[in-house]
Amino acid sequence: MNVAVYLPDLAKTRWWCETLSALLPGWTIRSLVEIEDRDAVAYAVVWRPRTGDLARFPNLKAIVSVGAGIDHVLADAELPKDVPIIRTVGPDLTQRMREYVALHVLRHHRDMPRQLQAQAERDWHAIVVPVAPNRKVGVMGLGNLGAEAARTLAGLGFATRGWSRNPKSVEGVETFSGEAGFAPFLDGLEILVNLLPLTGETAGILDARLLGQLAPGACVINCARGPHLVDEDLLAALESGQIKQATLDVFHVEPLPADHVFWTHPAITITPHIASQIDAATGGRLIAANLELFEAGEPVPDLADAGRGY
Amino acid sequence: MNVAVYLPDLAKTRWWCETLSALLPGWTIRSLVEIEDRDAVAYAVVWRPRTGDLARFPNLKAIVSVGAGIDHVLADAELPKDVPIIRTVGPDLTQRMREYVALHVLRHHRDMPRQLQAQAERDWHAIVVPVAPNRKVGVMGLGNLGAEAARTLAGLGFATRGWSRNPKSVEGVETFSGEAGFAPFLDGLEILVNLLPLTGETAGILDARLLGQLAPGACVINCARGPHLVDEDLLAALESGQIKQATLDVFHVEPLPADHVFWTHPAITITPHIASQIDAATGGRLIAANLELFEAGEPVPDLADAGRGY
Ligand SMILES: NC(=O)c1ccc[n+]([C@@H]2O[C@H](COP(=O)([O-])OP(=O)(O)OC[C@H]3O[C@@H](n4cnc5c(N)ncnc54)[C@H](OP(=O)(O)O)[C@@H]3O)[C@@H](O)[C@H]2O)c1
Ligand SMILES: NC(=O)c1ccc[n+]([C@@H]2O[C@H](COP(=O)([O-])OP(=O)(O)OC[C@H]3O[C@@H](n4cnc5c(N)ncnc54)[C@H](OP(=O)(O)O)[C@@H]3O)[C@@H](O)[C@H]2O)c1
Repeated sequence: MNVAVYLPDLAKTRWWCETLSALLPGWTIRSLVEIEDRDAVAYAVVWRPRTGDLARFPNLKAIVSVGAGIDHVLADAELPKDVPIIRTVGPDLTQRMREYVALHVLRHHRDMPRQLQAQAERDWHAIVVPVAPNRKVGVMGLGNLGAEAARTLAGLGFATRGWSRNPKSVEGVETFSGEAGFAPFLDGLEILVNLLPLTGETAGILDARLLGQLAPGACVINCARGPHLVDEDLLAALESGQIKQATLDVFHVEPLPADHVFWTHPAITITPHIASQIDAATGGRLIAANLELFEAGEPVPDLADAGRGY
Repeated sequence: MNVAVYLPDLAKTRWWCETLSALLPGWTIRSLVEIEDRDAVAYAVVWRPRTGDLARFPNLKAIVSVGAGIDHVLADAELPKDVPIIRTVGPDLTQRMREYVALHVLRHHRDMPRQLQAQAERDWHAIVVPVAPNRKVGVMGLGNLGAEAARTLAGLGFATRGWSRNPKSVEGVETFSGEAGFAPFLDGLEILVNLLPLTGETAGILDARLLGQLAPGACVINCARGPHLVDEDLLAALESGQIKQATLDVFHVEPLPADHVFWTHPAITITPHIASQIDAATGGRLIAANLELFEAGEPVPDLADAGRGY
């Protein structure tokens, strides 16, 4: 089987070619840009492919996203229609995201940014906050990552809510769904975590209207995709005090440009898209296993539902 | 019943007198320093009493510590012998400590101090760490607070160990006990949390010998008592790199003096004894309930074991 690999970073592309070659003996795995016999390519393994990259292969059987999201594949205006897309998910990815969400919700809950500022001023300033059961936190998106993140927050004792498209039940979490469930989900939330996929419906969802429905002085954590957030609306809500602090892992442009106002904003914590980077060795094993399953005609649980767009 | 109240802070003493008076109608509750009829005092409610404060009351039936530790009472060289000491613990205290331990273990695990430094430098610097199941963390002390803290860390996915005086079993936690279990407990730990009580045996336990047994580059969190730590040994271990970062909530002298080197040390995070401050309203209810139980001759589960010294 012939596989084309593309990631924006050339060194990473090479690493993935070597790793997958070692895991899939007998398969031919090459950097997408070096491939001459395009008709022979049956699979593409990609992260942020460029427009038209995938259309060059007329006999593609499946596209593998090196990550949980498929928005970066669907963003290709010339994407071949009806080619199945396989996501790369797994226990490691979920574990890392639970850690990230727990860490950053706790940081905001206990107001570590302010506590660190007190240290910088040598100020013995005790910040005493409500206990977690008296703190309303919410997770938008209850998929692989969101459901586990919400369960983790409930396990830490937080009064936890979750929101998804279809009704869901998550142990210890008060769940809401769809348009009708949106306002009651948001109402009075003190810490909001976004784990939605990026789709036509969810782009720009973190806007002034949403931020205004949270509790005054709420905190927001975006660890899904940059375009979920309307940057100016966040800045205005921080300015007015409606939002107290934000932690952002994802941005409209990544790496975040050095002159972006977010870098130095006192109420914004920036992490460089590391909420849940699958470690490459684990990711390689998952992708190789999924390619073998697909090629053997077996069901692939990580197949994305193209109709839904995520 | 007559109750004497003493806390170093006068405003707090007043607050406790009023709160307990409201909760215990019929009892006479006064600031310790204002009491004239010493023979009539049956109970003392104290935090860090001064030497001799308690010896002034010949008919004390019990002493209540406004907190989980009793070291601050036992520190009184003139403490009347054989007067039972009641601790103030409860679900709120445990909940707050689990939050603190989870937050600070996750902060060190994901190297937030370094990540924040990257933000200050506008540096898109991705720090990718092992997943929690590949991270060895340990909790010293498996009492009310330590056992729940260890269980919480295990729930977050960490490879968690615990150490106590007597053998204990905590779900999901590998437990060790006594002298013989100390070295195997410490061996290779990457993040260590101290939740021991301060006793003759545990004072100075966080010393060069202990720090040297952790994994190189380990992190240490002290949320028990300041005198558990040998300050100079920590500074030397940070200097050598054996210890990478430390988070300290408690200190030999509190508030930490403004000229103490810890305040500005780049590898030390300081929190002002807020790991688990019982919120006063909750604490008031607990103390009132314990006083009523004791006075009625009922068993008081929060009675400290004076023989053990904690
Ligand atoms: N920052 C990082 O490091 C990082 C790493 C990995 C992933 N991510 C992001 O996290 C996202 C979520 O990943 P996942 O694996 O959990 O996705 P997933 O399994 O596809 O789950 C998506 C969830 O969002 C809900 N949803 C989708 N559209 C919605 C809408 N219009 N209204 C309400 N709910 C909607 C879905 O509802 P239903 O349950 O009803 O379908 C589902 O619960 C990814 O798409 C990616 O953008 C970020
Ligand atoms: N920073 C804060 O905000 C804050 C707040 C509250 C409390 N604290 C501190 O936390 C401490 C622990 O509180 P707690 O309520 O969990 O205490 P606890 O219920 O008395 O438990 C103490 C634990 O330490 C173990 N231990 C005692 N001496 C030992 C020794 N020599 N070697 C090994 N293990 C030993 C005990 O072992 P056994 O199980 O065998 O008895 C027990 O597991 C308090 O004493 C206080 O100093 C700090």
